[in-house]
Amino acid sequence: MPTLKLRSVAIDTYRENVVYLHRGCTLYRSEGFQALNKIEIHKEENGQPVIAVLNIVEDANITAPGELGISEQVFEQLNLPPGTPVTVKHATPPASIEAVHDKINGEALSYEQYFRISQDIVENRYSKIEIAAFLVGCAETGFERDEVLYLTRSMVETGDRLEWGESLVVDKHCIGGIPGNRTTMLIVPIVAAHGMLMPKTSSRAITSPAGTADTMEVLANVDLQPEELRNIVQQQRGCLAWGGNARLAPVDDILISVERPLSMDSPGQMVASILSKKVAAGATRLLIDIPLGPTAKVRTHRDALRLRKLFEYVGDRMQLELEVVITGGSQPIGRGIGPMLETRDVMQVLECRPDAPMDLREKALQLAGRILEFDADVRGGEGYHIARDILDSGRALAKMEAIIEAQGKNTRPLQLGRLHHAITAPRSGKITMIDNLQMASIARLAGAPLDKGAGVDLHKKTGEHVEMGEPLYTIYAAFPANYEFALEAARQDIGYTVKETDSK
Amino acid sequence: MPTLKLRSVAIDTYRENVVYLHRGCTLYRSEGFQALNKIEIHKEENGQPVIAVLNIVEDANITAPGELGISEQVFEQLNLPPGTPVTVKHATPPASIEAVHDKINGEALSYEQYFRISQDIVENRYSKIEIAAFLVGCAETGFERDEVLYLTRSMVETGDRLEWGESLVVDKHCIGGIPGNRTTMLIVPIVAAHGMLMPKTSSRAITSPAGTADTMEVLANVDLQPEELRNIVQQQRGCLAWGGNARLAPVDDILISVERPLSMDSPGQMVASILSKKVAAGATRLLIDIPLGPTAKVRTHRDALRLRKLFEYVGDRMQLELEVVITGGSQPIGRGIGPMLETRDVMQVLECRPDAPMDLREKALQLAGRILEFDADVRGGEGYHIARDILDSGRALAKMEAIIEAQGKNTRPLQLGRLHHAITAPRSGKITMIDNLQMASIARLAGAPLDKGAGVDLHKKTGEHVEMGEPLYTIYAAFPANYEFALEAARQDIGYTVKETDSK
Repeated sequence: MPTLKLRSVAIDTYRENVVYLHRGCTLYRSEGFQALNKIEIHKEENGQPVIAVLNIVEDANITAPGELGISEQVFEQLNLPPGTPVTVKHATPPASIEAVHDKINGEALSYEQYFRISQDIVENRYSKIEIAAFLVGCAETGFERDEVLYLTRSMVETGDRLEWGESLVVDKHCIGGIPGNRTTMLIVPIVAAHGMLMPKTSSRAITSPAGTADTMEVLANVDLQPEELRNIVQQQRGCLAWGGNARLAPVDDILISVERPLSMDSPGQMVASILSKKVAAGATRLLIDIPLGPTAKVRTHRDALRLRKLFEYVGDRMQLELEVVITGGSQPIGRGIGPMLETRDVMQVLECRPDAPMDLREKALQLAGRILEFDADVRGGEGYHIARDILDSGRALAKMEAIIEAQGKNTRPLQLGRLHHAITAPRSGKITMIDNLQMASIARLAGAPLDKGAGVDLHKKTGEHVEMGEPLYTIYAAFPANYEFALEAARQDIGYTVKETDSK
Repeated sequence: MPTLKLRSVAIDTYRENVVYLHRGCTLYRSEGFQALNKIEIHKEENGQPVIAVLNIVEDANITAPGELGISEQVFEQLNLPPGTPVTVKHATPPASIEAVHDKINGEALSYEQYFRISQDIVENRYSKIEIAAFLVGCAETGFERDEVLYLTRSMVETGDRLEWGESLVVDKHCIGGIPGNRTTMLIVPIVAAHGMLMPKTSSRAITSPAGTADTMEVLANVDLQPEELRNIVQQQRGCLAWGGNARLAPVDDILISVERPLSMDSPGQMVASILSKKVAAGATRLLIDIPLGPTAKVRTHRDALRLRKLFEYVGDRMQLELEVVITGGSQPIGRGIGPMLETRDVMQVLECRPDAPMDLREKALQLAGRILEFDADVRGGEGYHIARDILDSGRALAKMEAIIEAQGKNTRPLQLGRLHHAITAPRSGKITMIDNLQMASIARLAGAPLDKGAGVDLHKKTGEHVEMGEPLYTIYAAFPANYEFALEAARQDIGYTVKETDSK
């Protein structure tokens, strides 16, 4: 078999393996390759081939005949130096694709079938198109509860698992859609100060203006290896780290990268996604927060209940005891939206300052309280008071500072976006609604979370009165282009509804 | 809005619009773009934006900051010179994607919804992932007959149509899967010689070793513009051209480019695909040939009947009268597989040579006869005899030669692949089966249809006896690599089943 020399092509094709072949290359002609054929790349010694989609190139500066150009993703997976000879051939369709066709035809699949599909997905044997076909095949009309369980198990089994050696390992997840909702950074110190094990790994923001990992990174290093995590958690009982270094439920990330462009968010996939990550992270108790509201991810109480039932069904069968709380999701929590602004809110609460955002403090205490009640020795209803004591006594702040030291305090100077502008009320009246989606969008355009000092600082919340011209919120940006885009978005849709009232 | 300068990137991304942005580009940072975001490219003057998927580049030799690198497909669609300033922004999801979500959730869609989806698809607003979601949503379990009709209509309406000004315009389609089945090149001359209008446009092979267009191209130019087609058909009553220059049902080609990697072939999609092309081509009568056999596309009589009913239902409602014939599909038709070899078979039949492949002659006469019976003046059952007379009298040959002259005789010297090897029988006995898929595969590896002289020449058919060592078929290839691959494939699976018999 003729070989091709590897050549790194500096193109990020985002979670899809792409390789490049020159149209004049002999191998291209003979194998009947055509752009978008899937091929297997074999290293000299036997091993797992890497699957990729083929694009054909006509510029030898990108890839010349005799070379195999590989995108950044492929380069990482192959882990071979440029110039290495490799062989390529047509990729046989993944064996599990037949199960996908069965699913499309309305059949229920077994655990073994979900496992094989997950295996093939994690080995990059599935193109985005095939993943889309799988996801749509599983869409609501045809995804039995047991199938959600099988898929969740498969997603755990095709990745690594963290083990903590204790029977009580707690975790928390918020379904999301509410900007500024940084309760995790309060809950972990409170719960760890109590002595409960809460090794929290979080993701970076995908579509929101800040994820827990992005926000914590303002204060400390979050990029920790599993061994470091273990040490920190052993000492401190908790951590706030980025989950990307442990290979937890990797199929989840791949599925999400296709679900998102499709705006698909079926309950079954949501449950499988969340629970697979938590089980892989070693949790034995999980608190799930479902914020409800017209612009939240879950919009009706009925949908929230249905989701809860599915969480309970799957969790119970995976040795993950969980509690679901349905909370208010009608406006952003706290005042800051964006990493530094949210960190400010969190520190204000930990420091028990009088100007701390009360809604964030209250929600964190409620949720921390529920988590504390996973402890057999804590009476039902007592959790909140214990949490409040830990917070008011300063033990939560001390624990946070200890966690920060253990992970590695951030010493890089950070500052709020130097370009800022206050958006003012268009009329006097009462604030009746704040659009979560629009506020998050403005914060992202302003540069969050990439620019840690970018985002939106809310001065007014729903129910409050404003005078015309009074600042509703301030936009912070680090770069002029972001600044302009965010201002323009706010001009087009201010995100606040102010209703005139006759009297104040 | 800041602009980017267009830069042509010589990458063929095959029916998916891809553009390239440098990671250091200000626009990338500010807009929150991420690889695989969909973006809209706007020209300076208002017009239809071109939608594309974004890949991020880190090599300024491919695309530098301030530039928008565009793949070959995008370059063709934008039709602007490199260096032209354009603006880009996030593509709003196509409005019709909501209908796709409804379909995924099990609802039946209206004509208007299918039309809007088709419009968005033809305007490149759908990524491959979204098209996959649409196709799977329509999969067998949820695609009512009326929906097949609506989709077919939409696929016609979102392209161009050919009109011939006569009430009787005939066409033919074979469901496929049978190599060497070049009846069209016999039927058109026969039917045109009778005076019936048969303006045949065909496609090039996608997965088979030769399409009608590839094979006809051995004899004449097939790349004709609609106006040229019209002139030729006016004079000759028929033509055998490539359909790619008239924009007939373009959504069909886009859907096929996603269906194929997914190996999806639902009856509804098949019917919509075939009938939309025929209606757009201006046909008023259509003969559909469904070859049946264990390795053909349609495998059981029941499936063939179900397909027939669906064809009839949709055809009747689109002023396309059709007849469906179910024919034998258990082995290749004729002897040649590959453009030149199949042309040889066709010419042998037209020239009425005694060594002409009888199965090809017979099948062509049967089908031509059925088409002739679309003529009100031809009695049922008479068509075959009229066809045979036209063939035996030499009028079909004369008509073919006239069509070849009119389209433009091919003057390039062509020759059979100079590398050839006979594959011999592994034992003496009777040939009980020939695997259509394997023979087609060997022919493709040998280089067909790209290399017109490549392919397979069958010496023996099923039912015939062979001695051990006797040639079953000969492989022809133009290039050593193809030659080796084809031989290797034949070694691994000869494609013929020879059963020992006690007596000859």
